[in-house]
Amino acid sequence: MNNKDQSSIVENIKSPHDLRRLDEAGLKTLCEEIRQIIISVVSQNGGHLASNLGTVELTVALLRVFGEKSDSIVWDVGHQSYTHKILTGRLKDIYTIRTEGGLSGFPKREESPYDAFDVGHSSTSISAAYGIAVAKQLTGDTSSTVAVIGDGALTGGLAFEGLNNVGKYKKNFIIVLNDNKMSISRNVGALARYLGGMRMSPKYLRLKSRVERVLSKTPVIGSPIRSLLRHSKSRMRNLVYKRTLFDDMGFVYYGPVDGHNIPELERAFNAAKNVNRPVLVHVVTVKGKGYSFAESDPKSFHGIGGFDIDTGEKISSRRDFSGVFGDNMVLMAEKNSRICAITAAMATGTGLVKFSKRFKDRFFDVGIAEEHAVTFACGLAAKGMIPVFAVYSTFLQRSIDQIIHDAAMQNLHIVLAVDRAGVVGTDGETHQGVFDVTLLNSVPNITIYSPCYFDELEFDLKAAAFKHGGVVVVRYPRGGQPYKPENYSCTDADYDMYGDLSSPFLLVTYGRLFAHACTAYEQMKSKGRGFAILKLNKIKPISDEAVKTASKYEKIHFFEEGMKSGGAADRFGEMLLEHGSVDGYSITAIDDEFIKQAQVERSLQILGLNYEAMITAAKDALGRKDNG
Amino acid sequence: MNNKDQSSIVENIKSPHDLRRLDEAGLKTLCEEIRQIIISVVSQNGGHLASNLGTVELTVALLRVFGEKSDSIVWDVGHQSYTHKILTGRLKDIYTIRTEGGLSGFPKREESPYDAFDVGHSSTSISAAYGIAVAKQLTGDTSSTVAVIGDGALTGGLAFEGLNNVGKYKKNFIIVLNDNKMSISRNVGALARYLGGMRMSPKYLRLKSRVERVLSKTPVIGSPIRSLLRHSKSRMRNLVYKRTLFDDMGFVYYGPVDGHNIPELERAFNAAKNVNRPVLVHVVTVKGKGYSFAESDPKSFHGIGGFDIDTGEKISSRRDFSGVFGDNMVLMAEKNSRICAITAAMATGTGLVKFSKRFKDRFFDVGIAEEHAVTFACGLAAKGMIPVFAVYSTFLQRSIDQIIHDAAMQNLHIVLAVDRAGVVGTDGETHQGVFDVTLLNSVPNITIYSPCYFDELEFDLKAAAFKHGGVVVVRYPRGGQPYKPENYSCTDADYDMYGDLSSPFLLVTYGRLFAHACTAYEQMKSKGRGFAILKLNKIKPISDEAVKTASKYEKIHFFEEGMKSGGAADRFGEMLLEHGSVDGYSITAIDDEFIKQAQVERSLQILGLNYEAMITAAKDALGRKDNG
Repeated sequence: MNNKDQSSIVENIKSPHDLRRLDEAGLKTLCEEIRQIIISVVSQNGGHLASNLGTVELTVALLRVFGEKSDSIVWDVGHQSYTHKILTGRLKDIYTIRTEGGLSGFPKREESPYDAFDVGHSSTSISAAYGIAVAKQLTGDTSSTVAVIGDGALTGGLAFEGLNNVGKYKKNFIIVLNDNKMSISRNVGALARYLGGMRMSPKYLRLKSRVERVLSKTPVIGSPIRSLLRHSKSRMRNLVYKRTLFDDMGFVYYGPVDGHNIPELERAFNAAKNVNRPVLVHVVTVKGKGYSFAESDPKSFHGIGGFDIDTGEKISSRRDFSGVFGDNMVLMAEKNSRICAITAAMATGTGLVKFSKRFKDRFFDVGIAEEHAVTFACGLAAKGMIPVFAVYSTFLQRSIDQIIHDAAMQNLHIVLAVDRAGVVGTDGETHQGVFDVTLLNSVPNITIYSPCYFDELEFDLKAAAFKHGGVVVVRYPRGGQPYKPENYSCTDADYDMYGDLSSPFLLVTYGRLFAHACTAYEQMKSKGRGFAILKLNKIKPISDEAVKTASKYEKIHFFEEGMKSGGAADRFGEMLLEHGSVDGYSITAIDDEFIKQAQVERSLQILGLNYEAMITAAKDALGRKDNG
Repeated sequence: MNNKDQSSIVENIKSPHDLRRLDEAGLKTLCEEIRQIIISVVSQNGGHLASNLGTVELTVALLRVFGEKSDSIVWDVGHQSYTHKILTGRLKDIYTIRTEGGLSGFPKREESPYDAFDVGHSSTSISAAYGIAVAKQLTGDTSSTVAVIGDGALTGGLAFEGLNNVGKYKKNFIIVLNDNKMSISRNVGALARYLGGMRMSPKYLRLKSRVERVLSKTPVIGSPIRSLLRHSKSRMRNLVYKRTLFDDMGFVYYGPVDGHNIPELERAFNAAKNVNRPVLVHVVTVKGKGYSFAESDPKSFHGIGGFDIDTGEKISSRRDFSGVFGDNMVLMAEKNSRICAITAAMATGTGLVKFSKRFKDRFFDVGIAEEHAVTFACGLAAKGMIPVFAVYSTFLQRSIDQIIHDAAMQNLHIVLAVDRAGVVGTDGETHQGVFDVTLLNSVPNITIYSPCYFDELEFDLKAAAFKHGGVVVVRYPRGGQPYKPENYSCTDADYDMYGDLSSPFLLVTYGRLFAHACTAYEQMKSKGRGFAILKLNKIKPISDEAVKTASKYEKIHFFEEGMKSGGAADRFGEMLLEHGSVDGYSITAIDDEFIKQAQVERSLQILGLNYEAMITAAKDALGRKDNG
């Protein structure tokens, strides 16, 4: 393969095997081509830019060493797997990434035999890969298994549980620590500081690689020479250099390795492959590598919508719920010194950057540690502070036990600001925020608000912080404010009525779907067939008054942007029954399915949760009435 | 205070202040008295014996150093807090422990100002205590905060998240690592091995304590002498002795300290108290210390029912669901080489000891790491193994995100053997197994079985392992088989009918409550007023046929030993509605409350879930019919 026609290199990589034929210059060109593709794709489709640009050489090196179908590369989080997709037969579809029916922005086993494990949440790779490795061992499969995990993901407790279990393993198992010095937000835990110190110790690597050069020439298992070498190496290391934390945890440590130097990476991986023990290869990469705007501002270019390639300017930067939340947090903290803010490595995403600068001593970025975030909040609350943990709905799933056992059971007053609640769009299945209501609905001592508009978010946050005790959840969608009728004013009541209250048909909903209900109402109204809308602002507990009001309608249809089982609509139905009957009651919610990637509005359409479905429901209800 | 009347020492400790007046001999006698009380109480009331016997001296030393009301001692898990209760004004009530209305077997803030944080689950102490410490710092409270955590609890990811966050703290914060070398089951992770190595290094302590003796005589903060000392200490340590993992994580490390030597403990705590940084004091204790039966078999004496003090013989050792599960696992593994068993440090509790001996290479004790357990199982399943994770219902709450994101979303075939499902009795609120159904009901790709009898458990396990794909849950109660009518035969059908099928009243239930339904039926039948019973064996998805059958009855009452919102009864109601109407449908389930400690049968009575409540329901239904 030659490098003359530059654009042809990546096109000729049909499988990882083809990578092995490239020389150093060819690899360099390949990486440039891949970077151009990634920038172009993400500028159009949105997605994770900085993380993908940081792992181009790492992926190439991994696939040159572990490129058999039987080898398993388990990417953590998976937001850095675009190069992996491009080099494992998916170049032709790469422009479909994150679109309806297209490639996922994350690894998916159904897409390719090279995708070892589905992912989207952080810190799962070590545990999953260890399971894969043990299964291979039990079935006599000698292929390699590699977990690739970022320094940010390593702050998650699940990753530590994995390390603790792998550390006792007696066979080859490789962890590649992709240390980009700043995972999603700058991560300030003890581990981050420790890794920082390690990056400053290049001598350590040189010693180790010399030893390993000898080691790699000796037979793999049981050789007395090897044993001697390992023994002396260990003594030498203990005497002259400090052991690393990873040695203490049972790993052979290699590093730090330059994550943009393919030959160096390959040397490390080949050495790691031949050790009959768990190995940790510490790779240092630069987030956003090769795209200046992303290198200088990796946080903004972590996960983004489309942007202009030449200027780095984001296409959409309208005001969103996260920003409104952040501004209100600053206002509340100014007035009340007990307000604290907690984020699990999502200060930017959740809108807490202003707060973090303004109230340094009351701001806590705990790393990707949602469990700790809640229990830590409980400790703060036990001593009278008002902690607000801002977290995406999908990641809140990590804290369910802490919410039940540490918060609700002690009836401690903590606020959960649940961002990205509901359908999230092109991130797809792993990131949908559709379980929070149903997971929390059965837990005592919890109040849940679900605002639809910015000023409601403000009302609800204030109520959550200052009016209630116990666990108070305020959940709001990703993105900006939806359609708001001109004549509609938000209130801080538990529920509001809207539309033609004397209609026999009542549509019940909450959160963002209220906007769809208004659109449906207006279209029906214009044809002289308006209906009533009951908008729940507080969805747990549901206002008895609201149910009583609803019970007077002949037909009631609840639209819920969340799972059906145990959701607010289910509960509303039970309460209706207590008030008389549910014969005229229908529910549309998400029923026993995971939601694939698509634009938010399109997802709502597919799920029967948009204004069109509401119009159909209203017509059915009113039509039957008209004919009755 | 003198030691002449030995029995008077503990009785004269009204608050921790009183401890300071005791001399070494008095303290020794006090500890003996406390041990006798603990053995006596646990032999009568059941509870945690070995863990409490292991922490007598540790608690005394802690309360002598950190015995102000404003100081916060946060016990991890809390199953070692009996001495703490005895010495903080609760001696008079100690014999009420774990009884209805009595003291809790775990710390409870509502019991005493000396209880800093409620607990029952593992690995929360560092996070909670750190929250408390930060709140104190923000409000100018200079009292001490101490987290006391076992080596087992330290294997939980939440504890690591806590360590990672505390390690960067700039103020005093003390973690006492209560290393008893074997937390609940022998714990075989890398950390356990590492701690084992540290315990073998007494030289390290001696070096450190010499340094600390000097340190403790110097002023507390900012002293140049201290700084110099610390600097030279650090250099000395790095040159001559290896740094510990805890140093790497940002802690000053003291240890190992003999956990049964009060003066040595106090010296360590006093030194720790005066360091303006996070400190980890490594204390080595013997589980079951002072009671030979418990010392030699700490696993059996971890959490137990009553026992005979003289022989150590347990009062109840009847066959239970855990044992039946374990036996069936061995049988299944004999026949199928893909069956693997996973436990999170509960091999004994879940009945997996036989399996662990018989199939060493397919048995995995992952430490107290329920998150890892599920994701690791998913890795095994991705490569064709059939992993069975045996876990108590209450601890399964830790794995919800892994079940959703790693297992169900990929539709991987894993089995969750959920032990202690339902009401658990005297362990109380923190351990009730009442959330699993409602938490899992909204998750796609999950099947749930809930057997009532041993042979059903066998049917269901086989179906779970070999018949289904996806996540399959088999949930069964703590303890032995409940009442079984002579004429009743278990089946492997999705549901069974029992009783007088032509009655207008149908009682629906599942799991253990079926036995209560049978008792209720027999009592009613003897008065000529029998009724029909529908027993669900599979509760997710619920058989449509079962609902159709039920829909023919005039009155239907579902009794569910679990949370109401999103539970099986809720779902049954929805399905009834789809078949026509729910007008005659009632539900008794646990509604929006945490369940306090009491004997299981008593809890069921209080909750309106026992045979008496069922008789009342049947009488109401049939009575109305008779009068109608």
